[in-house]
Amino acid sequence: MREEALLNALQPQMVEWRRYLHRHPELSYHEEKTSRFIAGKLNELGLEVTTRVGGGHGVLAILKGGKPGKTVALRADMDALPIQDEKGCEYSSEVDGVMHACGHDGHTSTLLAVATYFCQRRQDVQGEIRFIFQPAEEVCPGGARGMIEAGVLQGVDVIYGVHLWTPFEAGTAASAPGPLMAAADEFFIDIMGKGGHGGMPHVTVDSVVAGAALVMQLQSIVSRTVDPLKPAVVTIGTIQGGSAQNVIAESCRITGTVRTFDEETRELIRGRIEDISHMTARTYGAEAKIDYLMGYPPLVNDEEETGRFFREAPSVFGADQVSQCDKIMPAEDFSYYLQEIPGCFMFVGAGNPDIQAIYPHHHPRFDFDETAMLSAAKLLVTMTQSFQGWE
Amino acid sequence: MREEALLNALQPQMVEWRRYLHRHPELSYHEEKTSRFIAGKLNELGLEVTTRVGGGHGVLAILKGGKPGKTVALRADMDALPIQDEKGCEYSSEVDGVMHACGHDGHTSTLLAVATYFCQRRQDVQGEIRFIFQPAEEVCPGGARGMIEAGVLQGVDVIYGVHLWTPFEAGTAASAPGPLMAAADEFFIDIMGKGGHGGMPHVTVDSVVAGAALVMQLQSIVSRTVDPLKPAVVTIGTIQGGSAQNVIAESCRITGTVRTFDEETRELIRGRIEDISHMTARTYGAEAKIDYLMGYPPLVNDEEETGRFFREAPSVFGADQVSQCDKIMPAEDFSYYLQEIPGCFMFVGAGNPDIQAIYPHHHPRFDFDETAMLSAAKLLVTMTQSFQGWE
Amino acid sequence: MREEALLNALQPQMVEWRRYLHRHPELSYHEEKTSRFIAGKLNELGLEVTTRVGGGHGVLAILKGGKPGKTVALRADMDALPIQDEKGCEYSSEVDGVMHACGHDGHTSTLLAVATYFCQRRQDVQGEIRFIFQPAEEVCPGGARGMIEAGVLQGVDVIYGVHLWTPFEAGTAASAPGPLMAAADEFFIDIMGKGGHGGMPHVTVDSVVAGAALVMQLQSIVSRTVDPLKPAVVTIGTIQGGSAQNVIAESCRITGTVRTFDEETRELIRGRIEDISHMTARTYGAEAKIDYLMGYPPLVNDEEETGRFFREAPSVFGADQVSQCDKIMPAEDFSYYLQEIPGCFMFVGAGNPDIQAIYPHHHPRFDFDETAMLSAAKLLVTMTQSFQGWE
Amino acid sequence: MREEALLNALQPQMVEWRRYLHRHPELSYHEEKTSRFIAGKLNELGLEVTTRVGGGHGVLAILKGGKPGKTVALRADMDALPIQDEKGCEYSSEVDGVMHACGHDGHTSTLLAVATYFCQRRQDVQGEIRFIFQPAEEVCPGGARGMIEAGVLQGVDVIYGVHLWTPFEAGTAASAPGPLMAAADEFFIDIMGKGGHGGMPHVTVDSVVAGAALVMQLQSIVSRTVDPLKPAVVTIGTIQGGSAQNVIAESCRITGTVRTFDEETRELIRGRIEDISHMTARTYGAEAKIDYLMGYPPLVNDEEETGRFFREAPSVFGADQVSQCDKIMPAEDFSYYLQEIPGCFMFVGAGNPDIQAIYPHHHPRFDFDETAMLSAAKLLVTMTQSFQGWE
Repeated sequence: MREEALLNALQPQMVEWRRYLHRHPELSYHEEKTSRFIAGKLNELGLEVTTRVGGGHGVLAILKGGKPGKTVALRADMDALPIQDEKGCEYSSEVDGVMHACGHDGHTSTLLAVATYFCQRRQDVQGEIRFIFQPAEEVCPGGARGMIEAGVLQGVDVIYGVHLWTPFEAGTAASAPGPLMAAADEFFIDIMGKGGHGGMPHVTVDSVVAGAALVMQLQSIVSRTVDPLKPAVVTIGTIQGGSAQNVIAESCRITGTVRTFDEETRELIRGRIEDISHMTARTYGAEAKIDYLMGYPPLVNDEEETGRFFREAPSVFGADQVSQCDKIMPAEDFSYYLQEIPGCFMFVGAGNPDIQAIYPHHHPRFDFDETAMLSAAKLLVTMTQSFQGWE
Repeated sequence: MREEALLNALQPQMVEWRRYLHRHPELSYHEEKTSRFIAGKLNELGLEVTTRVGGGHGVLAILKGGKPGKTVALRADMDALPIQDEKGCEYSSEVDGVMHACGHDGHTSTLLAVATYFCQRRQDVQGEIRFIFQPAEEVCPGGARGMIEAGVLQGVDVIYGVHLWTPFEAGTAASAPGPLMAAADEFFIDIMGKGGHGGMPHVTVDSVVAGAALVMQLQSIVSRTVDPLKPAVVTIGTIQGGSAQNVIAESCRITGTVRTFDEETRELIRGRIEDISHMTARTYGAEAKIDYLMGYPPLVNDEEETGRFFREAPSVFGADQVSQCDKIMPAEDFSYYLQEIPGCFMFVGAGNPDIQAIYPHHHPRFDFDETAMLSAAKLLVTMTQSFQGWE
Repeated sequence: MREEALLNALQPQMVEWRRYLHRHPELSYHEEKTSRFIAGKLNELGLEVTTRVGGGHGVLAILKGGKPGKTVALRADMDALPIQDEKGCEYSSEVDGVMHACGHDGHTSTLLAVATYFCQRRQDVQGEIRFIFQPAEEVCPGGARGMIEAGVLQGVDVIYGVHLWTPFEAGTAASAPGPLMAAADEFFIDIMGKGGHGGMPHVTVDSVVAGAALVMQLQSIVSRTVDPLKPAVVTIGTIQGGSAQNVIAESCRITGTVRTFDEETRELIRGRIEDISHMTARTYGAEAKIDYLMGYPPLVNDEEETGRFFREAPSVFGADQVSQCDKIMPAEDFSYYLQEIPGCFMFVGAGNPDIQAIYPHHHPRFDFDETAMLSAAKLLVTMTQSFQGWE
Repeated sequence: MREEALLNALQPQMVEWRRYLHRHPELSYHEEKTSRFIAGKLNELGLEVTTRVGGGHGVLAILKGGKPGKTVALRADMDALPIQDEKGCEYSSEVDGVMHACGHDGHTSTLLAVATYFCQRRQDVQGEIRFIFQPAEEVCPGGARGMIEAGVLQGVDVIYGVHLWTPFEAGTAASAPGPLMAAADEFFIDIMGKGGHGGMPHVTVDSVVAGAALVMQLQSIVSRTVDPLKPAVVTIGTIQGGSAQNVIAESCRITGTVRTFDEETRELIRGRIEDISHMTARTYGAEAKIDYLMGYPPLVNDEEETGRFFREAPSVFGADQVSQCDKIMPAEDFSYYLQEIPGCFMFVGAGNPDIQAIYPHHHPRFDFDETAMLSAAKLLVTMTQSFQGWE
């Protein structure tokens, strides 16, 4: 990439912005000050800025380039998590019980830097660039759908996004074509039996036994019903039945999560969970009530744009530092954008044992190597220039 | 009892008759020679004899006494079992693969001796005595129903029967009021799935997993659904599914037996087996086909007549040798008679380690202490005289 | 019984005493005022009274009769339950959240009346009578053991106790020889697995699946391992595992109760629960920790003394109103006394729909027909006189 | 490829050879006439031929080229299956119950044609070419290991093999880098309980219930223990326990197959099957005996050589007709060669609905489009020339 120096010069500011955001985290759907901060910076750059996009705290900034060409969207998320910051460093969260424990502060700073860079080179931009600052990535139904419904993708040809990722070392990047991150659904099943005296099972319908049987039968979904070549997980996270050891429980509650990488498997599993729950409950003379909540869909990278990542990323990270990674079980609402238009979601390594950036995402001591923001910014710039065909 | 000497004198003949029958056993529903032998003896006694009673090889003999009074029925069974006799004694079975391994030869001889005794004392008989020699006790639907339908119980006030019983020592007797022997039903379940390649479970419906799940769910009938104070057994005797280790089985067959002591529990279990089978099959996307065969009903002794047994039997066996026994899991079609009229079924101890009468019923080396036949005869005589109120 | 009028005359006082106690209930192990009340009455009668027997609030009163003879112990319990009285009548509990919801107030009044009666007829008493007022029947380990250890049964030949029982109508009585009330044990099992991300089961040990499998395997104890003729219940009252639907649970807790009527079955089940828990946990790579708490043993009535009940009770209740009842699943620490000496525990019907005495024991609206106290007193007097051989 | 006409000219002979072999199929380890036929043709070509290689009917032919270079091995298998040919065409099997139902006749003919072609161009061969005709691919332990032990791979740089594949249309080719075909292991588990009377479970150890429990627990291997991103199958193909519906089964036999694509998962599953079987049996007081037979390992294509396939195959089939296929659950002992040296196993489409080549492999009506042999021959020639770097 040309004019790399421009980006390098923005590094101190990225750190400053990020640390400000890190000290002032806001929960999903409550990103009021964060979005004001973002809009302020974007206005300073002279961009066309819309706030409160999509019914929440979304921000959209549009840059029309000096030359005709295609439209590229770049997306960052901005919300924090209900976790108590345990880092105890200078820029730790100042909000009790709320923390940027997933790196969205870094994503926001990175995209602000990218916007700054492109504003400085506005005459070279071949077409249009849209900067999407999306709220509420952490909590279903997520902010992406509101942004899309508000029209942020209208006329857009391609979209790119990054995730700073501490399981990978700083200085590396990875992605994969096709399904990359899982769909994550949730289910809540109530087995309604008939409680009674622990010594008189024959006048009850034992919901704990029915619930246990259900847990066993649900194992067969992955072991027997899903194509062995299609990765899938059905986890029962909780089972809760009864309140006293000598009383037969009136009801038993089972909750869980489903992870899949394609819609067909997802629908298959949903249907099986419902059928198995109803039938197993009835096997025991009980009834089942099931709530199945569809979470984010699987994130499916475009083949061609992922090919672009594998071609272009080595110029930023070095050929040895760019790899194809395995599928990853967490979910991302970037998946909604990719259901609409082509694009690529990319992981930028942000782990660094030397500075204790070793904790997994969502951990109370989570932190990342701040130099990864610069790498991420360069990656977004490079992808954009490649797509628009800059000389 | 008076004139006991008359019975004592019949002991050698009882042994002779029994050994003849033991050498010439006949299977259930094929008791041709046996019934001819019985009818011959009864005719010699000058009794009113009917053969081929109840559509099979049943024999009925009627003794009208010298005094007016009530009618008592006494019943013996006569069929043998498809077992190879391994005793190797002088009176071993001469029929290959057929053996009196349950003592019905002894029951027949006993009742012939009782008939002889009462014929000798015909003038003292206060009312009527019917001698029922019933075929086919060992195989469902059993010979008792045919005898009853043929009218052998018409006008009868009470019925008694004995079983020589090697688990109890010779010289003892036992019975119990109420339910004494179990109802024994059978069930046959076919789980119909969809077979296929062992490596491609997702295009099959695995009938082996559905069958295994069914075996597990069926355990809950006894553990949860039946009143803990009501004895009940649900046994899965066989499970057979699949023909090759690397092919998913199209179907899985499960067979079993149910033991109960009351009709309510029996019907409850039957219904639960059917419901659980259908629901469990459907849980896995399979279908179940169920055949439930009702066997003999539970044998339920009349309270009053069992009271008579506890009062009268000590005069035959001594007070210490008469006891109330536990319920017994095998079934008996004497139960059908007791569904019609009051009566008592009694166990006469016939085990004796000194003469190797130690094997359980239905064992290839089964034998009994032949002196038990005399005790059994005295018991039947005593019960009859007590009921008719002989001085 | 002679001098029945003496007891009849005590009826108003029994009601007064009972209502006083009912208004002032005290929880198990805290029967301070109750025992003072009892001791006061007994002292007034001129009996030899010991308080604080057995380390708690137990009271023992000894009556030495005018004639030589055998020693009879009569026992009442005195504790209340942590239940809010919802009756709303004149004698409702005045203690918030505490209530005589099992009739122990009636048992105490009954036994005070019996003591009064025998004091009035002290010259006719043939031997000795001990009045045992026992605390803490409702909570394991129970008050009976302390009383026994304190020696209240030393030199005693027989013991009787009654329970006012609303499921049976007032005016009736019932008991049964042998095992009458169940042993009630408790178990607490922790399955220790390894928690983790709901989408990554392969790096966890799923304690919920292991727990569910355990519930299924435990069904086999009653369905396969216990003699079908021995009543037994294994109930899993609670299962609790996991805290979030998308996190695999580190551990799963299962609690339950075991009901049996003989020590052999009880020990068998205890052993099977322990073995099955350990093995099932290990099947899944988890570990099990098991606490098995032995509760009261089965209450086993002496054959001879229960025979006495069936002979004597009709003189109090009428022949038609005395019956042999089925085994009952609740437990009673009267069982400890019966492990030491012969005796009989008897149910005195106390239900009466006309006065709303229709609620089961331990119900917030529980009440009993107060005339049942007089019947109970007469039963205890009659049993005592029969045993001592009064003319 | 140059001199394609030489191969085209061999097409009639390939068909003739194939049809001869098809009429005279021989079972695994009995390929006597087949190997004689092969050796005859190779000798006619003037190659250096060794027969009875590897202790069976293996044939090795070595072609030393006119120029120095690297050594390429090409492999065909030659055995037939115990299936009755139901095609009823002119070249149907003449051997009762034996049939070339997997296309190995075609593989042999193809390789003979390739050998002929290279002999005709011997001067252009840059290095050495080895023609491996391997017996016994269909039955474990398979012929490949014997060939390798006999040294056929010594000094070989690369190996190629093809499978004619009717699920893919004639005119296409497919392969994939890394794991392509599954490891297929087998297991045989005997649960040893203690049989007995169907009505007396308490004196038995019910092996059917233990077996059913085992089937349920084994589901957890794939659902919980295997990495969801690693394809794996654990199928219980058969369960057989008990012989009569009213007798509790002494033992229960469970057999199954395991499919995996990497050694780590394979070993994990093997260990889990053994642990779960032992522990589940012990849960029920039974014992388990387990035989686990390792079948062929997963077939893992070399990345680089599969890259060569994707580069070179389009010249034979056209770019649109070459694709990357999914993993396939059947196993192949070509996997053993790939454990030793780099190489690539390739599928050549051979289905054609116009000529009824529509049945799956191992079907009694299996047949393939014979033109696929020419495509396969061209593919092997092209891969060889590419590897040796022919101009």
